Amino acid sequence: MKTAAEYEESLRKLNLKVYLQGELVENPVDHPIIRPSMNSVKMTYALAEKSEYQELMTATSHLTGKKVNRFCHLHQSTDDLVKKVKMQRLLGQKTAACFQRCVGMDAINACDSVTFEMDQKLGTNYHERFNKFLLQMQEEDWTVDGAMTDPKGDRGLAPSQQADPDLYVHVVEKREDGIVVRGAKAHQTGAINSHWILVMPTISMGEADADYAVSFVAPADAEGIYYIYGRQSCDTRKLEGGTIDVGNSQFGGHEALMVFDDVFIPWENVFMCGEYEFSGALVERFAGYHRQSYGGCKVGVGDVLIGATALAADFNGVAKATHIKDKLIEMMHLNETLYACGIACSAEGNKTASGNYLINMLLANVCKQNVTRLPYEIARLAQDIAGGLMVTMPSEKDLRNPEIGKVVEKYFVGVSSVPTEDRMRILRLIENLTLGTAAVGYLTESMHGAGSPQAQRIMISRQGNLAQKKELAKAIARIETK
Amino acid sequence: MKTAAEYEESLRKLNLKVYLQGELVENPVDHPIIRPSMNSVKMTYALAEKSEYQELMTATSHLTGKKVNRFCHLHQSTDDLVKKVKMQRLLGQKTAACFQRCVGMDAINACDSVTFEMDQKLGTNYHERFNKFLLQMQEEDWTVDGAMTDPKGDRGLAPSQQADPDLYVHVVEKREDGIVVRGAKAHQTGAINSHWILVMPTISMGEADADYAVSFVAPADAEGIYYIYGRQSCDTRKLEGGTIDVGNSQFGGHEALMVFDDVFIPWENVFMCGEYEFSGALVERFAGYHRQSYGGCKVGVGDVLIGATALAADFNGVAKATHIKDKLIEMMHLNETLYACGIACSAEGNKTASGNYLINMLLANVCKQNVTRLPYEIARLAQDIAGGLMVTMPSEKDLRNPEIGKVVEKYFVGVSSVPTEDRMRILRLIENLTLGTAAVGYLTESMHGAGSPQAQRIMISRQGNLAQKKELAKAIARIETK
Amino acid sequence: MKTAAEYEESLRKLNLKVYLQGELVENPVDHPIIRPSMNSVKMTYALAEKSEYQELMTATSHLTGKKVNRFCHLHQSTDDLVKKVKMQRLLGQKTAACFQRCVGMDAINACDSVTFEMDQKLGTNYHERFNKFLLQMQEEDWTVDGAMTDPKGDRGLAPSQQADPDLYVHVVEKREDGIVVRGAKAHQTGAINSHWILVMPTISMGEADADYAVSFVAPADAEGIYYIYGRQSCDTRKLEGGTIDVGNSQFGGHEALMVFDDVFIPWENVFMCGEYEFSGALVERFAGYHRQSYGGCKVGVGDVLIGATALAADFNGVAKATHIKDKLIEMMHLNETLYACGIACSAEGNKTASGNYLINMLLANVCKQNVTRLPYEIARLAQDIAGGLMVTMPSEKDLRNPEIGKVVEKYFVGVSSVPTEDRMRILRLIENLTLGTAAVGYLTESMHGAGSPQAQRIMISRQGNLAQKKELAKAIARIETK
Amino acid sequence: MKTAAEYEESLRKLNLKVYLQGELVENPVDHPIIRPSMNSVKMTYALAEKSEYQELMTATSHLTGKKVNRFCHLHQSTDDLVKKVKMQRLLGQKTAACFQRCVGMDAINACDSVTFEMDQKLGTNYHERFNKFLLQMQEEDWTVDGAMTDPKGDRGLAPSQQADPDLYVHVVEKREDGIVVRGAKAHQTGAINSHWILVMPTISMGEADADYAVSFVAPADAEGIYYIYGRQSCDTRKLEGGTIDVGNSQFGGHEALMVFDDVFIPWENVFMCGEYEFSGALVERFAGYHRQSYGGCKVGVGDVLIGATALAADFNGVAKATHIKDKLIEMMHLNETLYACGIACSAEGNKTASGNYLINMLLANVCKQNVTRLPYEIARLAQDIAGGLMVTMPSEKDLRNPEIGKVVEKYFVGVSSVPTEDRMRILRLIENLTLGTAAVGYLTESMHGAGSPQAQRIMISRQGNLAQKKELAKAIARIETK
Repeated sequence: MKTAAEYEESLRKLNLKVYLQGELVENPVDHPIIRPSMNSVKMTYALAEKSEYQELMTATSHLTGKKVNRFCHLHQSTDDLVKKVKMQRLLGQKTAACFQRCVGMDAINACDSVTFEMDQKLGTNYHERFNKFLLQMQEEDWTVDGAMTDPKGDRGLAPSQQADPDLYVHVVEKREDGIVVRGAKAHQTGAINSHWILVMPTISMGEADADYAVSFVAPADAEGIYYIYGRQSCDTRKLEGGTIDVGNSQFGGHEALMVFDDVFIPWENVFMCGEYEFSGALVERFAGYHRQSYGGCKVGVGDVLIGATALAADFNGVAKATHIKDKLIEMMHLNETLYACGIACSAEGNKTASGNYLINMLLANVCKQNVTRLPYEIARLAQDIAGGLMVTMPSEKDLRNPEIGKVVEKYFVGVSSVPTEDRMRILRLIENLTLGTAAVGYLTESMHGAGSPQAQRIMISRQGNLAQKKELAKAIARIETK
Repeated sequence: MKTAAEYEESLRKLNLKVYLQGELVENPVDHPIIRPSMNSVKMTYALAEKSEYQELMTATSHLTGKKVNRFCHLHQSTDDLVKKVKMQRLLGQKTAACFQRCVGMDAINACDSVTFEMDQKLGTNYHERFNKFLLQMQEEDWTVDGAMTDPKGDRGLAPSQQADPDLYVHVVEKREDGIVVRGAKAHQTGAINSHWILVMPTISMGEADADYAVSFVAPADAEGIYYIYGRQSCDTRKLEGGTIDVGNSQFGGHEALMVFDDVFIPWENVFMCGEYEFSGALVERFAGYHRQSYGGCKVGVGDVLIGATALAADFNGVAKATHIKDKLIEMMHLNETLYACGIACSAEGNKTASGNYLINMLLANVCKQNVTRLPYEIARLAQDIAGGLMVTMPSEKDLRNPEIGKVVEKYFVGVSSVPTEDRMRILRLIENLTLGTAAVGYLTESMHGAGSPQAQRIMISRQGNLAQKKELAKAIARIETK
Repeated sequence: MKTAAEYEESLRKLNLKVYLQGELVENPVDHPIIRPSMNSVKMTYALAEKSEYQELMTATSHLTGKKVNRFCHLHQSTDDLVKKVKMQRLLGQKTAACFQRCVGMDAINACDSVTFEMDQKLGTNYHERFNKFLLQMQEEDWTVDGAMTDPKGDRGLAPSQQADPDLYVHVVEKREDGIVVRGAKAHQTGAINSHWILVMPTISMGEADADYAVSFVAPADAEGIYYIYGRQSCDTRKLEGGTIDVGNSQFGGHEALMVFDDVFIPWENVFMCGEYEFSGALVERFAGYHRQSYGGCKVGVGDVLIGATALAADFNGVAKATHIKDKLIEMMHLNETLYACGIACSAEGNKTASGNYLINMLLANVCKQNVTRLPYEIARLAQDIAGGLMVTMPSEKDLRNPEIGKVVEKYFVGVSSVPTEDRMRILRLIENLTLGTAAVGYLTESMHGAGSPQAQRIMISRQGNLAQKKELAKAIARIETK
Repeated sequence: MKTAAEYEESLRKLNLKVYLQGELVENPVDHPIIRPSMNSVKMTYALAEKSEYQELMTATSHLTGKKVNRFCHLHQSTDDLVKKVKMQRLLGQKTAACFQRCVGMDAINACDSVTFEMDQKLGTNYHERFNKFLLQMQEEDWTVDGAMTDPKGDRGLAPSQQADPDLYVHVVEKREDGIVVRGAKAHQTGAINSHWILVMPTISMGEADADYAVSFVAPADAEGIYYIYGRQSCDTRKLEGGTIDVGNSQFGGHEALMVFDDVFIPWENVFMCGEYEFSGALVERFAGYHRQSYGGCKVGVGDVLIGATALAADFNGVAKATHIKDKLIEMMHLNETLYACGIACSAEGNKTASGNYLINMLLANVCKQNVTRLPYEIARLAQDIAGGLMVTMPSEKDLRNPEIGKVVEKYFVGVSSVPTEDRMRILRLIENLTLGTAAVGYLTESMHGAGSPQAQRIMISRQGNLAQKKELAKAIARIETK
């Protein structure tokens, strides 16, 4: 397995083409806007080095029997599924941000069973190809971007009906040695911090969209691939040079548009090509795993937000007020409700035909549906307790100013035993998580990542077994079924 | 194990003294108001006889290695804890009511570890006595009432401070052969359908309340014990003789006041007598197990309510309306959220010193806290979909009236293919669950059973580890801990 | 104006045909199940006699300049609209039940402007007929049942498409002297306590349903009209003879099915006959007024529930607990939010073409939409504070039993200074309002009365002016409108 | 009255000392971070010039009978109170931001009645002084900063108990010609855009804090006053030069710390000096008026957010999806609920002893309490409908880049008929309102402005008349009051 330092080093060797604010970035690893997101991924390597986190951070490969980073692992039991969630909570606690590497883990777990089932039914050899890639990924300890979401254009139209055929990634040429793909993937989490990309289709497709039913892997710096970095609320505070106003100076996340400008993919890296009837299963399983993920990572970030809020109450001198204590309890209650859902869909997982474990689909969707709601309420309560100063405080530069710095210190003190700077730090962290760069992950991504709320409702409807419930009611009400 | 028929027979042999509506009941088993609750308990025996439910309904005794009803079992693994919740959901689905037997199961599991720890620390021999009782309970397949809640009088005063010393059960005499107890236990679920009673203290106590720190078992018909049956919303509909207006003609639940009028308890049946410092642990663990329980039983009842509501929509001809479908999804989402909490606190359980398994206390309290909220919203949505007819419909007697019965049939038809009677049956079931006898269990008991909401909040506060969360936030905000 | 005594007397003179529990009722006024609802209507007369309530309870007729009961009045100003809401809150406070007379007031106010506009457009003379009836209604101080809701059968089909043509009230014969109508009106609030009935169509209709577009008045005991009384949760407790278990021994509400078995209506009493294009306006305005009403009456009932809950806390000895105080504040906050909506839609009312005042339609629908939610939460909080005893207490007969009455008194005491009976009374009142007869009005009727929630959402959608909001957003975002 | 141009000109003449990001600002009016907030205040002058807004924007002075800007007016009727709310909704719609001038209007209305009552009771002549100031304010059409909130230090300590005596504004010297004050006011809305400051105490005070019970007016650029500008989420985007990424390029709001460094105030400008027993009334009334205000301004901003969200749905091609329509209805429902509260507390206002009108205090607090909740849910729903692109989109500079601008246009198109730039504009506006500079006003200020949620709960508790509600319940339950 790679050390954290080796991970950073390996990224420097990539030849990524990244645009940010209208300019090509020379050195993504050290760019102040990008670097905190790299630090978050790096933490997935760093913690795997520490003995106290071995059980959560690593696993034993079913391919080789060797120890691998859990992010490269196929879940071999419900215990593995539970540990995945606990690892994600841990990383959320340590970074207070999106650590990005989950998409790859969720993608390989989805691809494993779907390629296996494709081969079973169609006689293809996708699963073998996939296993070869997986082996390499485990050996090299790669960070992989599981790339699913296409730009989609008009949501009312299918891929092949769009005015521009490229609004979904598709095969533009099939050659003897491979395929050429064109299009883009939007909202790509951690794309700039990844070694490889695993592309999957984004919706269940019909025959007319067969060219869009394509899945493959490619090196992140393959010829024809480039990135446009997404901007986040308060992103440019990272260019100001301080450590207070950014809220979280060490960690962050990112999303980017990933463009495929006629990229060649050799056949050995292709896992689906036209088998549209399997696109739905791949989408559903990847989404399912990722909906489970949010029952871990968002809970970890929530832990930090709750801790920060409790500190704000301490610093304001109100920690003993009953309504403050009650709101903190409510925040913990909501946060643990999410965790309960993450644990439950894992503990209730099942073995797939290929041998790895799938979460309980109904509960994973219930988990994510709660994630689209409860963090918003947790954030609202955090703002309630923090107080308005969170959004009216002067800047770090004012605090550092030799003349008015003292005035800032004098008037923004809370309880006299706590330095004003510490109070500002904690309030800026709450701002970061509820309005700033991290709110992108803690709130908006909680809403839309792994599928928007309506997607979960459709799944809940399908999985909820209403027919059985009707039979139960008939039995109690003594209604004869004809 | 007893068959369902044997269970009913065994109850007939008891010599219970039960008051109901100001009169002594001759034959509780056949009393029309009581009988449906007996049927619910009976179902815990009936399903244990069926091969398809063996895995959930039975377990292997750690004392004897024999198969026992799971209600008499000490949980030997997290798997046992999970199965307990699934068994409860199943029984909720089959009865749409409180099946009452959980209190005994939760009581024995709490007593096991607490008596063990008492003996370890104090050199007492309570655990041995407890084991003897447990062995008999398993052999006889008894239904046991785990009796905790005292009447409490003025909630602002401790047991020994009350104007009347009997408002909490207490020891009034210690004799060589045993103790004499006085007082009462309120809200006793399933008391009239139980063979034995396992009494526990209801709050954590101090030295001054040592006489109130008492735990013991007694036969339900012991000398000096009598019962006053609690009345429920719509209870007397069961005296009307029909099967529609009662909503659920087969099953129900009950609570009763259980009075101890100087009852003698031999030492071998005493499990705590004055060791007040262990009263808190016993309360907390029993409550913890019982808070887990609600993540199963209420979910099963919820399944029936959701099914009934979906049928009401079918019968009204609105099943395809988008807002109806969306509300049904919401009901399922909320119901499964409760289930997720029930599963999670089980899967995350831990082994106690005595060897049985305890649920994760934080998640069990989170589970119950959600149970104090979500069923109310599910019930509200059920009433939304059912329509106002649920509360304005004529009576069953009107339907059966030779003259106006036809008018009722004519005007209360929904879709023409469904008999009016079926529509009435389903609406009465929804009424039963949201306003009637079953609402007592599905709503008010969801609020107060296993401890009122504030009790869970106190536990969440204690278990939530706010101190660790503050440290996490300090690390992210780069605040040095002094 | 009638005195309360005269009102009761006048009802005795009616020759109503009422079925209840499969039997024809001899004397509805004194029937123990019906009488409490009569008492509620009677209160609308009684308070009008008291000088301190003159301003709210009475108004000056725009027809005669005489003082009339406000329930017979056409609103002449926004001040009248506001006073209507305040009168309703007052009556809710005094009865803790549905006082039923609003439907008539809302019906006459809707009919006034719609008949005027029909005449304006079509040259009919409905408004003159209506005025004649109104004059008499004011002179006689009648209680009028505004009857709108048809049984509706299959909700997916229009009136004329139903398998049975009678599922909506319709004209079966047009004669020179009048019309003959057949069908039924369901959920008729206060029907048995009314002198006259004002029938209106229940939905917006098209040409095919012209025969169903019919509005008229008829004496409540006209030939061919009969009633089947709707049963309510806990209704038969009123037959038990006590005053505790009923919760509210004095007041109640009722709904009934009103059947029109080929009833002849002379032309002078017909206000619409075939003018289907005006059916929508009549429905919308009646519903609008009635949605306003709920911002008054339900708030008054809410006041009683909040008061009862506060007393329960006092009696339990927990009134000073912070969480109790906070929940009572929340209950008041929610209740006053409903009131604010009732006041706002009144204060923002507008003059109609006929001269009376119409509420602000958008805000009236917002008011009712909140009424479908907030009382359920208020009720949930009431149950939280009341404690489980509310549903597990013995019956009044147990309390009165010479032998065990003392036991009931002993063990169900709260703070020692309050008699157990008082505590039982207050808990039974909370039961009554959240599960019993009054829950029918406070909860289910809050949901469905004046139109189910979805009906309000459709109106909010229509009235919300989304197009203007889009223009506002374009101006801010600097998007040019093409 | 001043024209908009004259207003801007008058600001240029002020000699304000403003620090922003550690530097003294040369020209606040043209500073790109400050200017949008000035534009919002300017709109209060601009709309007053337009004939269509005369009724809302202007009023007739009770002092001079001349037309004045409503922001300088004392409310003379409930109609004035209602118009105030409508004016605020209008301005919210036109600026999608905080237009800041309300604090002055609310301050003069509070000071009017309180100074009158002080004079009545104590024989002081504060009201005369106040009237002189008010006359000038109306003549000059000043924008006045109503300054209440002190920094407060340790919330657990009274002003005189703080470690630093300056954490609340206080009198440090009383001279023959006036007083000298020291301290600061935090979160000062619109301070940099104001001509004068009206200082009020921030809490109800006791005798020990008499020196802190001080109210006065001062020119915004008085000797010894300086400002430190508060930073907002995404504030520096305004320095980037574009019009898209800022979301709202024209309007904004601001808060600042206002420091009083031994400022001299002549007696004629002092309205309270030591009369601590009136500090509570002044706080309560100012807060009351300001809680009403939020029922207007936030609703107007909400209108823009709803409009923007509806456009986002149009541009995404999902406007016809039922769940989208339903969420837009919910947003309107919630927004109008706030408006209903704003209208209701106005329509139910009362005349004060001094002759101006006070809102209904209970309903104003209910209004604000809802404002601390519903905008957060509206914002959550906006993010739901907008989609994740809102936080992952590239920057304006990427769109303008000659090379990759086309790629951005290609891949971020929605429905093909709408330019990508328009889609980006609308998404950036939603970002602005839910995470960016405007979220500070729409969310966090909705929480804390005019008092934090707990402050309203205390007022609801005091105003809710629980004692009367208990009497109502006793009457219904037939409990005799001793």
